[in-house]
Amino acid sequence: MTPVPKGFKFAVARAGFKKPDRLDLGVIVSETPAVAAGVFTKNLFQAAPVLVAGERLLNSSHARAIAINSGQANACTGDEGLKNCRAALEITAKALGLDPSSILPASTGVIGDPLPLDKWEAALPELLKSLGKVGPKDVAKAVMTTDTTPKCAFCAASGYESEVRVLGIAKGSGMICPNMATMLGFVICDARVEPDVWQETLSRAVEVSFNRVTVDGDTSTNDCVLALANGASGVEIKGDVGPLAEAVTKVCQDLAYMIVQDAEGGTKVIRIEVSGAKDLAQAEVAARAVGNSPLVKTAMYGQDPNWGRIAAALGRSGADFDPANVKIAIAGIVVFENGQPLDLDVDAVLGPRLKDRDILVEISLGTGPGTYALLASDLTHEYVSINAEYRT
Amino acid sequence: MTPVPKGFKFAVARAGFKKPDRLDLGVIVSETPAVAAGVFTKNLFQAAPVLVAGERLLNSSHARAIAINSGQANACTGDEGLKNCRAALEITAKALGLDPSSILPASTGVIGDPLPLDKWEAALPELLKSLGKVGPKDVAKAVMTTDTTPKCAFCAASGYESEVRVLGIAKGSGMICPNMATMLGFVICDARVEPDVWQETLSRAVEVSFNRVTVDGDTSTNDCVLALANGASGVEIKGDVGPLAEAVTKVCQDLAYMIVQDAEGGTKVIRIEVSGAKDLAQAEVAARAVGNSPLVKTAMYGQDPNWGRIAAALGRSGADFDPANVKIAIAGIVVFENGQPLDLDVDAVLGPRLKDRDILVEISLGTGPGTYALLASDLTHEYVSINAEYRT
Repeated sequence: MTPVPKGFKFAVARAGFKKPDRLDLGVIVSETPAVAAGVFTKNLFQAAPVLVAGERLLNSSHARAIAINSGQANACTGDEGLKNCRAALEITAKALGLDPSSILPASTGVIGDPLPLDKWEAALPELLKSLGKVGPKDVAKAVMTTDTTPKCAFCAASGYESEVRVLGIAKGSGMICPNMATMLGFVICDARVEPDVWQETLSRAVEVSFNRVTVDGDTSTNDCVLALANGASGVEIKGDVGPLAEAVTKVCQDLAYMIVQDAEGGTKVIRIEVSGAKDLAQAEVAARAVGNSPLVKTAMYGQDPNWGRIAAALGRSGADFDPANVKIAIAGIVVFENGQPLDLDVDAVLGPRLKDRDILVEISLGTGPGTYALLASDLTHEYVSINAEYRT
Repeated sequence: MTPVPKGFKFAVARAGFKKPDRLDLGVIVSETPAVAAGVFTKNLFQAAPVLVAGERLLNSSHARAIAINSGQANACTGDEGLKNCRAALEITAKALGLDPSSILPASTGVIGDPLPLDKWEAALPELLKSLGKVGPKDVAKAVMTTDTTPKCAFCAASGYESEVRVLGIAKGSGMICPNMATMLGFVICDARVEPDVWQETLSRAVEVSFNRVTVDGDTSTNDCVLALANGASGVEIKGDVGPLAEAVTKVCQDLAYMIVQDAEGGTKVIRIEVSGAKDLAQAEVAARAVGNSPLVKTAMYGQDPNWGRIAAALGRSGADFDPANVKIAIAGIVVFENGQPLDLDVDAVLGPRLKDRDILVEISLGTGPGTYALLASDLTHEYVSINAEYRT
């Protein structure tokens, strides 16, 4: 069993927000006020829970709990959505004996439908009954939508007077192209950290993990990562935050990988490493053009070493480079260099390697020092099935 | 039968560039030197025929013929590709009795593979035999790759001393997101026009036709539109180019529509009309985010009135607006306004309308005067099948 940071409890319930009889409500409760941090979607249509969580973090650097539901995103729901979000937190706080303003919300599911408060309320007895009897994996299950596996990651930070534990929970499978934020992600830690240090630690970790994955280029209205640090380990981190930052980053990167691994209908995890770009921004632009190209993604699904599609995506990306200096390697095999294809039978040489789940695509633009790495999924029949039939 | 501009002949042949026994080589020949214009892909990886055609148009404002092959794109093929392109034009010119520099090339097909000159040469007798005995539709067939229908459009320009005929041929079905250019498109006209006027007429028409469609957001390495005006009608246009421009634009728009209608695996033509953006550029950014969103495209395929995905795509587009001012209508029905969903049963009201092939999505951002219209296809199982199995 995964170790859990000290001083946290979990609870889950079946509210029936979208489908009956599946876990769709979860809470993470800290036994004492925890230092709280958050990173939110940059989508202009921010969901009600994103707005409410952001507002609460502005008002206080501490929180006691995170309440999460799946099945309804409570996004694009206007004033009614905000009212419903606050009311749901109110009744949950009452049931848990907490101050309502000390709970942070997060929602995922269908956009535009109202959050059914009656179902939330009816699920509270089950939620209370499970409090402390279930673990993080159950909360991970409760936040799944099209996810096929619950996603938890753990890392201990050593080098402090006693062990500091960092645990993360995430959901995400479609509408994944986090922009300065992510899907739903939750990080808990039992160290005591200064609020601004905790926020900085989270922001940096998100930047090199969740913000570097894409499933379909669609940034969600509900993306957020919330993080609580409650100090229950007895460790108060004042000096070197290095080991803590490493642990938080490791947890976020593991979860980000799991999201791409569980991409809607996905059969591949494509790691796109761009180097030699003018700067980081141009490297990112190039990597995203490749990672979001439907033609590259379908070729990977078809295990087709069609590197010309990678070149075409680079060429239209907007990144500035000279095609004559470009080098492309797939699964370690160079296929294009100095503006010319290499003289090799790509099907024979690369075909077998493309049967692997993890595919490395290395691109050198030959222009400057900029590098960027992005994890992308492939585009499959199953992705289309899932998304053509999601609502109905 | 479609009327054909005067003074043009067509020829086709089966060279077997990718598959045996299908038309894959076509030429359009003007009986006299025609004023030539071209618009080319902005992809940094420009294919050999794009480079050669561009170079020839720089050197001369006139051309006698366009030679087009499908099956091999001759892109990312380096110096060898340029050599092959020029050699293919050389032998074709010899067969047709033309100056080699008077033929403009265009290619479409697999990226990265060499153009087989021997096959081209072996097809020349068949090509010559067909010269003048086949029509534009046969050339349209010869340039098809994953296209399921040949694409021709015709429009007469009236208001001159005699009728001026404009005919267009296009190919395109996948890797479609023309950027300042298009897929392969060919426009021929029997008026006499000044070279700079003809180029301007073509550029403007392309901007409001081919440049406003998307299948998959992937801009090809081979996109080009070439246009010949040979004066065989006896009409010399010096004053009002209005009727000519209208005819060229109409032909390009008809062809652009046909490309989306024949999008790889497509079942829908989605017309996205954005208004109320800050300016045209922001309207375009918003329209493209919606038109390229895999989630919007799969919802349309599934005939699912999931308007939340349209809102999410707008919100991440980068266009600047206040969500509270946004209005979204699908098939004429307003579903979201003033930051709130409308109180209606979208499935009951919109469901039946989404069975139509043509779907209108109207978006008002409520910010300024910017408008933009984009034609987009849906994303289907068949798109994935086609592109996972294209090369092999």
